[in-house]
Amino acid sequence: MSHNSFGHLFRVTTWGESHGPAIGCVVDGCPPLIPLTEDDIQGFMDKRKPGQSRFTTQRREPDQVKILSGVMIDEDGIQKTTGTPISLLVENTDQRSKDYSEIKDRYRPGHADYTYDAKYGIRDYRGGGRSSARETAMRVAAGAVARKVIPDVRIRAALVQIGPHKINRDNWDWDQVDLNPFFCPDAAAAELWADYLDGIRKAGSSVGAVVEVVAENVPVGLGAPIYGKLDTEISAALMSINAVKGVEIGNGFEAAELTGEENADEMRLGNGSRPRFLSNNAGGILGGISNGDPIVARFAVKPTSSILTTRQSVTRQGEEVDVMTKGRHDPCVGIRAVPVGEAMVACTLADHFLRHRGQIG
Amino acid sequence: MSHNSFGHLFRVTTWGESHGPAIGCVVDGCPPLIPLTEDDIQGFMDKRKPGQSRFTTQRREPDQVKILSGVMIDEDGIQKTTGTPISLLVENTDQRSKDYSEIKDRYRPGHADYTYDAKYGIRDYRGGGRSSARETAMRVAAGAVARKVIPDVRIRAALVQIGPHKINRDNWDWDQVDLNPFFCPDAAAAELWADYLDGIRKAGSSVGAVVEVVAENVPVGLGAPIYGKLDTEISAALMSINAVKGVEIGNGFEAAELTGEENADEMRLGNGSRPRFLSNNAGGILGGISNGDPIVARFAVKPTSSILTTRQSVTRQGEEVDVMTKGRHDPCVGIRAVPVGEAMVACTLADHFLRHRGQIG
Amino acid sequence: MSHNSFGHLFRVTTWGESHGPAIGCVVDGCPPLIPLTEDDIQGFMDKRKPGQSRFTTQRREPDQVKILSGVMIDEDGIQKTTGTPISLLVENTDQRSKDYSEIKDRYRPGHADYTYDAKYGIRDYRGGGRSSARETAMRVAAGAVARKVIPDVRIRAALVQIGPHKINRDNWDWDQVDLNPFFCPDAAAAELWADYLDGIRKAGSSVGAVVEVVAENVPVGLGAPIYGKLDTEISAALMSINAVKGVEIGNGFEAAELTGEENADEMRLGNGSRPRFLSNNAGGILGGISNGDPIVARFAVKPTSSILTTRQSVTRQGEEVDVMTKGRHDPCVGIRAVPVGEAMVACTLADHFLRHRGQIG
Amino acid sequence: MSHNSFGHLFRVTTWGESHGPAIGCVVDGCPPLIPLTEDDIQGFMDKRKPGQSRFTTQRREPDQVKILSGVMIDEDGIQKTTGTPISLLVENTDQRSKDYSEIKDRYRPGHADYTYDAKYGIRDYRGGGRSSARETAMRVAAGAVARKVIPDVRIRAALVQIGPHKINRDNWDWDQVDLNPFFCPDAAAAELWADYLDGIRKAGSSVGAVVEVVAENVPVGLGAPIYGKLDTEISAALMSINAVKGVEIGNGFEAAELTGEENADEMRLGNGSRPRFLSNNAGGILGGISNGDPIVARFAVKPTSSILTTRQSVTRQGEEVDVMTKGRHDPCVGIRAVPVGEAMVACTLADHFLRHRGQIG
Repeated sequence: MSHNSFGHLFRVTTWGESHGPAIGCVVDGCPPLIPLTEDDIQGFMDKRKPGQSRFTTQRREPDQVKILSGVMIDEDGIQKTTGTPISLLVENTDQRSKDYSEIKDRYRPGHADYTYDAKYGIRDYRGGGRSSARETAMRVAAGAVARKVIPDVRIRAALVQIGPHKINRDNWDWDQVDLNPFFCPDAAAAELWADYLDGIRKAGSSVGAVVEVVAENVPVGLGAPIYGKLDTEISAALMSINAVKGVEIGNGFEAAELTGEENADEMRLGNGSRPRFLSNNAGGILGGISNGDPIVARFAVKPTSSILTTRQSVTRQGEEVDVMTKGRHDPCVGIRAVPVGEAMVACTLADHFLRHRGQIG
Repeated sequence: MSHNSFGHLFRVTTWGESHGPAIGCVVDGCPPLIPLTEDDIQGFMDKRKPGQSRFTTQRREPDQVKILSGVMIDEDGIQKTTGTPISLLVENTDQRSKDYSEIKDRYRPGHADYTYDAKYGIRDYRGGGRSSARETAMRVAAGAVARKVIPDVRIRAALVQIGPHKINRDNWDWDQVDLNPFFCPDAAAAELWADYLDGIRKAGSSVGAVVEVVAENVPVGLGAPIYGKLDTEISAALMSINAVKGVEIGNGFEAAELTGEENADEMRLGNGSRPRFLSNNAGGILGGISNGDPIVARFAVKPTSSILTTRQSVTRQGEEVDVMTKGRHDPCVGIRAVPVGEAMVACTLADHFLRHRGQIG
Repeated sequence: MSHNSFGHLFRVTTWGESHGPAIGCVVDGCPPLIPLTEDDIQGFMDKRKPGQSRFTTQRREPDQVKILSGVMIDEDGIQKTTGTPISLLVENTDQRSKDYSEIKDRYRPGHADYTYDAKYGIRDYRGGGRSSARETAMRVAAGAVARKVIPDVRIRAALVQIGPHKINRDNWDWDQVDLNPFFCPDAAAAELWADYLDGIRKAGSSVGAVVEVVAENVPVGLGAPIYGKLDTEISAALMSINAVKGVEIGNGFEAAELTGEENADEMRLGNGSRPRFLSNNAGGILGGISNGDPIVARFAVKPTSSILTTRQSVTRQGEEVDVMTKGRHDPCVGIRAVPVGEAMVACTLADHFLRHRGQIG
Repeated sequence: MSHNSFGHLFRVTTWGESHGPAIGCVVDGCPPLIPLTEDDIQGFMDKRKPGQSRFTTQRREPDQVKILSGVMIDEDGIQKTTGTPISLLVENTDQRSKDYSEIKDRYRPGHADYTYDAKYGIRDYRGGGRSSARETAMRVAAGAVARKVIPDVRIRAALVQIGPHKINRDNWDWDQVDLNPFFCPDAAAAELWADYLDGIRKAGSSVGAVVEVVAENVPVGLGAPIYGKLDTEISAALMSINAVKGVEIGNGFEAAELTGEENADEMRLGNGSRPRFLSNNAGGILGGISNGDPIVARFAVKPTSSILTTRQSVTRQGEEVDVMTKGRHDPCVGIRAVPVGEAMVACTLADHFLRHRGQIG
C-alpha cells in the first residue's frame, strides 16, 4: 500500500535507497520460456547510467545488473524465464562518504524533503534516499524484461524540447538519437542544445525538458474501457517518474484547440480489411484501447531542483535559512528520463499485452 | 480486471450502459458515521446533467440518484453511512427508440467503435453503450460521497479554455463559475465563448476545451512516493475521463521551459512554523506528496467526435463508407467535464486521505 | 478495502443489507459473447432461497434476480454478455415491520453484534444488516454467471454431516441430492436427519453441519504457486461464507495421520499419455495447481447462533442481560450453505480459468 | 498476478528458488520509525532453519538474513524503519552439485512436478525450485518484521499432533515448546513422538502433523465483514504454506457437531465494561472481526512426499516408471511449519492492524 509496485499482470516492485548497499526490483508475472540474460538488460541500464557525458551527473555508478531468480538454463543452453519472480539487483558503489549535515535539516526547495518529513517523521537525507532518481534504474531494468514479453513492439523515445528550445519535427531522424548526448532526433537542435546546456551547467543552474515516447507495431485491442484505459495507465506510468509534471497522449493539449472535423482521425481500408487511419491525433488509442497506430506519449520534466544558486527555505526545526545544493547534479534530468520513459511504456504495454492475450481486459 | 473500479481504500465500481434500464455504482470503503442523503449527491448530479443550456446535449435525463444500501437513520433521525458498501442507482429514462441501424456497422471516427469491436467482438452501439459519457454521471455521484469524507477540503473546477480561446487569468472570479453555462471564471470570456460556441453548434461542429481543478485546504502528507504519487493518481483519474488527452499538475508543461531557479517554490515560515511556499509551481505536490498548498490540475478534452459533417470511415464488414453522426450531441463535451473533473479529484483525495489517516501511504 | 469484492479477473462486488430496499452485486471481468439470461441465474437462486422446507427459515423472499447491465441481445435474438460489468439486483420484499428494539442494544452470543459495534460504532441491527446471510444470495447469483464461463466444469455440493450424524459414503448418490430437503447424497441418512432436525427445530435449537463440494472436469493447470494456490483461494472463498469455521482440501485433516506412502497419489498413464492418478488424496490440487482430478473441498458450518434458549450476554451500554433470539431462523444454516459453497467454488474456478487461459497464473 | 505477494497494507513479495544464488523478499507498507535490526529477524530464522535436530532435514543452511533497504540509523544510533520498502535477502549456500538427472523427467508423486510442467512448460527440478519449502524462510523473515508492527500481540505456535498421536491438552505448557525438537507443548507427548518419528525416519518414510497457532492480546476490531474476514485471511495465509490441506478457526470442524446452545460463547462484563467471553469456541473471531479473545487457528500438514519407498509414477515423456526420492528430507515437514505458521498469522494480523488503525477495514 506504500505503492512501490506497478502493473497488474506484469508487476514490478522496486526497493532501495541511493545510499544503501543496493537497489533492486522484483518482476512478478513475466511469462515462462522467454530467453533472458543479464546482457539483455545491461544495454538499457547503460543508456540511463550517470556520467555518460558532461550533461549528466558525474556520479560514477557502473549499474551492473544481476539476475537472482526466475531464470534457468534449458537443455539447449539458453537461459529462459521460468514464470517465477525475477529478482534484479544493482549494487550501489559510489556512496561517497559525503557530509550531508548541511542538508540534513534543511528543506531543499523543489525537493520532497519537507513532505517526506511531514509524512513519515523520518527521511533518508543521504542522496535523497528513496526519492532519489536512482530508483528509476530499476524501472529501466524492468523495462528491458518487458520488451522481451512484447518483442514485436518497437518502443523508442527522444528528447523533443529542452528549456524553451523545441526540435524541428521536420528534421526527425531516429538514427540521430544515439549520436548525441541528448537522445535528440534533430541533429541541428542537438548542436544548439549543447551550447545552451553548457551555459546552464556552468551557471550551476538547470532546465526542464519534454520527452516523447513512440511505440510502433502495437497490437489492436490493448487497454480496457473506463478506468483501465491504455492512455490512463501510460499517463500514470509516466507521471510516476521523478520530476514529471505533465503528460499528453497523441496531440494532447493541442486537441483542445481543434474542431471535431480536424481532430477525429478518418479511416480507409488498410491491409486485411483492417481500418487504416489517415491521421494519428489520437496517439494510437481510441476509447482507451489501442487502434494499431503508433502510440505517442509526451511528458514534461521540470528542471533539476538541485542548483548552485542560494534559495530561501526553512529548516526542520522551524527556522528560515538559505539553501544551496552542492554536489554532482544533472543540469537537465530530462535527458536521463528518456530511457526511463521508454521503460515505463514498455512495462505498461507488456502488462496490457498479457491482459489482452488472456482476453481479460 | 476489466477495470470498472478505481481507488484503493475509497473504491468506486461503476456499471451500466446508456441504453440499459439503469446505471449505477458501488462505493466501498466509505467510513461509517458520515451523514449522507440523496440530496447531498443530487446537487452535483444536477450540475452535470444534460440539457442545462443550449451548449450541452438536449437529451433529457433527470438523473435522479437513489441510495440502495450503506446508510441507516440513527437515533437522532440523521441518515448516516454504516461503513458498508453504498450502492447508488440512476434510472435511464430517455432511451429514445431511435433507429441505430445506420451506425450499427459503421465505425464513427474518433469514437471507440472500431477498437471495442476489435477487442470484444461485440459492442453496444446504442448510444455508445459503456463508452458513453453517461458513465461519468456515476463518477459525479461517487465524488459527492467523497466530498463528505473530506469535508474541510474545497474542490472546485472551471473551464479555462474553449477551442483557441483562453480565459484571462487576471479576471479569475470563482463566483462567476455558477453564473454562466460554461463554468467559466472569467465573465468576459464567457460572453465571447457564447458567441463562438453558437457558431460551432449551428455548424454541427464541435470543439475541445481545457478544465482546471483546484483543491484547497488539502492536508500535508497525502500521497506516497514512487508509484502512488498524488500527481500520478490525480493524472490517472483525470485521464480516465472520456475524451481527455492531456493532464498537467501545477505549471505542467510550462515547467519544461523554466530554470531551476524559476521553478522551485521557495519557502518562508508560515503559521505554526510550517513552511509557507512563496509560489506554487508544484501545484501543491512535492515528491508525490501534498505540501499543503492548493492542488492544481488541468486536463485537455478533445472535441466531441459526433459531428454533422460527413467523414470517411469503414464498416464492420470491411467496406469504405462516409459517416455522419446525427443526434443530440454536446458541441463541447469539455463543459460537462467540469463537474466530472471535480469528482475525480474528490475521489482521489478521499482515497489518499484515508490512506494517510491510517498512516499507510 | 472494506473488502466487499472477491476474485481477481472474475471479480464480484456485493452490496446491500437484509432490511434495505434491495441487495445486489456487480460482476466485473466476465468475458463477452457468453449467452446469459435471468433464467440462467434464477434456478440457482431458487435452490438457496428461504422457505423451501420446514428445515429452513420461513421468511418468504421470492429472490427474483434482475440483470441491469452487461448484456445485449444479438442479431440472432440471443442475449449475450458484452464484457462490461454485469449488475444484478434482488429486491427485498419481506422486510417485516418487526420490532427490533429488543436486540438493538443487546449483543446476541455467536453473532457479530459486539464486534461490528466495536469496529464501526454503528450497526444495522435490523435482521443483521450486512452480516446477514442474505448477502450470500448474491454469491449464488454471481456463481451462476461463473458457471457460464466454465461450462465444461461440473460443480456440485452435498451435505455430508449434520450435527454428529455423517453420511455413509458407500451410499453416495448425486441423484439423491435433489430429492431431499438437505442436499444429502445418502437417502438413508436424509431420513434419519429429518427426524433429528425436527427435534432440534421444535426445541428452538440449532446444529452445525459439513458441506462437501466436488468440481469435475477441471482443466489441468488452474492455480498458481505460493500465495495464489488454488487450494488457498478455494479455502478463502469458503471460509468467507457466514458461520464457516473450518475448510479442508482432499483428505484434509486426515492427511496429518497418514504416512508419505499412504498419502501421495501414485500415477500411471491415462488418456493421451497424461498422468492418471490412482487415488485422490490431494483433492485434485498439487502444489497449488489443479491436476485434472476432481477438486474436493469440505467446510464446517457452525450451528445457527439465533436460538430460542436464553443465553447470557451484555448490552451496548455495558449491562449484563439475558438474550433470546426470536424470529424465523434456520435450525441448520448448513443446509442453505450448500448452493453457496458451490457458487464460491464456481467463482474461484472461473477466476482461475481466466488467469490460466491468459497464461498469467 | 503470479501471486508471489500477500497482504494488502503490510505487503510481502517473495522471490527465489532453492538452487539459485539467493532467496529474498520485499516488505512494503511497514510503518516508519519502528526499531529493526537483522538480529530481530535472525532469531526467528534460526527456529525454522534446517539441521536443528535429527528430525529435520540435514541440509545445512545458515540462513543468515541481510537487510538491504528500508532502514536508517537515527540520531540516537538506533536503526529504524523509514516507511520505504524493506528488502531482505538470504544467500543459498548449500546448493550441492547433486545429480538431479534422475528426477528431472520423473514426476514425483505428491509433488508439484507434473502440475508445474503442465502449467509452465518449464520447471526448475533442482531441489523443487520455487515449489521448495525453502520459500517459507522468507515468510519467517517477513513475520519477524510483522511482529514489530504489533509488539503487544503475542503469537505462538505448537505442534499438537504428529501422525495419529495427539497431545494431551491438559498437559499444555508453552515453556515446553522450546525444550523439545517438535515445538510440542506436552512433554510426555514429545518423548513418545521422538520414538515414533525415529521409526518413521529410519524407514525412510514420513508422516503428517497438525499445528496450532495462538495469538493473544489482539485488539478488538481487526478484520472486515464479508470477503475480508479475519478468519478468511488467516485461513488463506495458512493454506498457502506448502503441504497444508486443512485449516480450522476456534473449534473448527467440531462446531459442526454442536448445538447453538453449546457453541455460541456467552458473555459477561469484563474489564472496562467490555464483554468477557465465557468460552472461546469462536477462536477469537465473530463475524470476521476479532473480539479480543485469543485467536486460535490450526492447520493440517500432509506427510513429506519425498520418501525412500519406490512409488509408481510417469515421466515427462509419457512413460510409466518407478520413483524413489533420495536426498535429505524432513520426516515430518509439520515440525518446521510451526514457525512458518506463526509468521503467517503475524503478517496477517499486522496487515489487519494497519487497516483497522486507519479505520479502513
